[in-house]
Amino acid sequence: MGEGFFITFEGIEGSGKSTQIKLLGDYLKKEGKEVVITREPGGTELGKKIRQLLLDPAHEDMDYRTEILLYTADRAQHFKDVIKPALKAGKVVISDRFADSNLAYQAAGRGLDYELVYKINDWVIDSRWPDLTFVLDVAIAEGLKRARASSFDLNGDRLEREADSFHQRVRKAYLEMVKRDRFALVDGNLAEEEVHQEVKNIITRRLF
Amino acid sequence: MGEGFFITFEGIEGSGKSTQIKLLGDYLKKEGKEVVITREPGGTELGKKIRQLLLDPAHEDMDYRTEILLYTADRAQHFKDVIKPALKAGKVVISDRFADSNLAYQAAGRGLDYELVYKINDWVIDSRWPDLTFVLDVAIAEGLKRARASSFDLNGDRLEREADSFHQRVRKAYLEMVKRDRFALVDGNLAEEEVHQEVKNIITRRLF
Repeated sequence: MGEGFFITFEGIEGSGKSTQIKLLGDYLKKEGKEVVITREPGGTELGKKIRQLLLDPAHEDMDYRTEILLYTADRAQHFKDVIKPALKAGKVVISDRFADSNLAYQAAGRGLDYELVYKINDWVIDSRWPDLTFVLDVAIAEGLKRARASSFDLNGDRLEREADSFHQRVRKAYLEMVKRDRFALVDGNLAEEEVHQEVKNIITRRLF
Repeated sequence: MGEGFFITFEGIEGSGKSTQIKLLGDYLKKEGKEVVITREPGGTELGKKIRQLLLDPAHEDMDYRTEILLYTADRAQHFKDVIKPALKAGKVVISDRFADSNLAYQAAGRGLDYELVYKINDWVIDSRWPDLTFVLDVAIAEGLKRARASSFDLNGDRLEREADSFHQRVRKAYLEMVKRDRFALVDGNLAEEEVHQEVKNIITRRLF
């Protein structure tokens, strides 16, 4: 489906995804591409409301199944309304997080059944997985420090408050994923410009 | 799991579920039972927010997969926080709608894959299906007339606005379900007191 190109950015909290997405988006636009930058959760009007439910620290006793069902509810609407039409129109779509986040956070991090997490995701995205997924890797302590510094709440949102062992499982899952072709591992500990250069090098090999 | 007894009420909009649940709850309490009356969506604090998203006519272009994932997100939390603990404590739980609603509305009504709808539901309820499910059956026209009369919005909520053919598929699915042992079909066209008497007759055979 679609002649567009679908890029996603993944990584633990504070890995620098949003900065790199902005830099990559600007670069691709300069190269003449039509670019749609979006994110999950919250890429649609309905999704913004779902995002609020997911990140609100008041819901700290949220059932893990409720959590992934809210993420995939958001994803289904986002895919249908934003991603699918943009790819069909030949655009480059860059999403800050996508289905792989559920495999890392909910399957590996929370311990939910991998097959079911995969199956629900595959269903909501019409089996249209990204063409290229950047995993920005940083040490847990560094990532959480950055995430908390940019958070409205000094204690962080519901996810940032998780124990280090949770974030370790998530990071490990990402480092497993990057062994596959669709993924590109980038060292997020480097300076912003260096990370961007590395992202550009990879994009040039895969997209142009 | 649980020594309690789990009763659900199902049926199309306006079939009289809430009235009958109230009457049955009062009766069982008089008989000395501890009764928990609850409903879906919206049986928890988080669920109330999910219910708002589901019923808001502003979300009329909601993806069908988003819809069922929101219902099951609500159900997972509701089952964990309300239903499961009450059953464990030996209580009688009466829920206004439960997983069967998804099989009727989302699988039969919307045409979503039955197996996946079943599997997600079975997952969020730890395979703890109700002990007894009443299906209150009324004609579509009568049900919608009653539902719209009690709705805040004269045009009805997002579900009530669906075409008659949708409600016909839902009703047909319920009438298929009642062939199985767990279900009891009750004619919802009768007077309230007559319906209640029928419900009591069935409960007496199954619970006492």
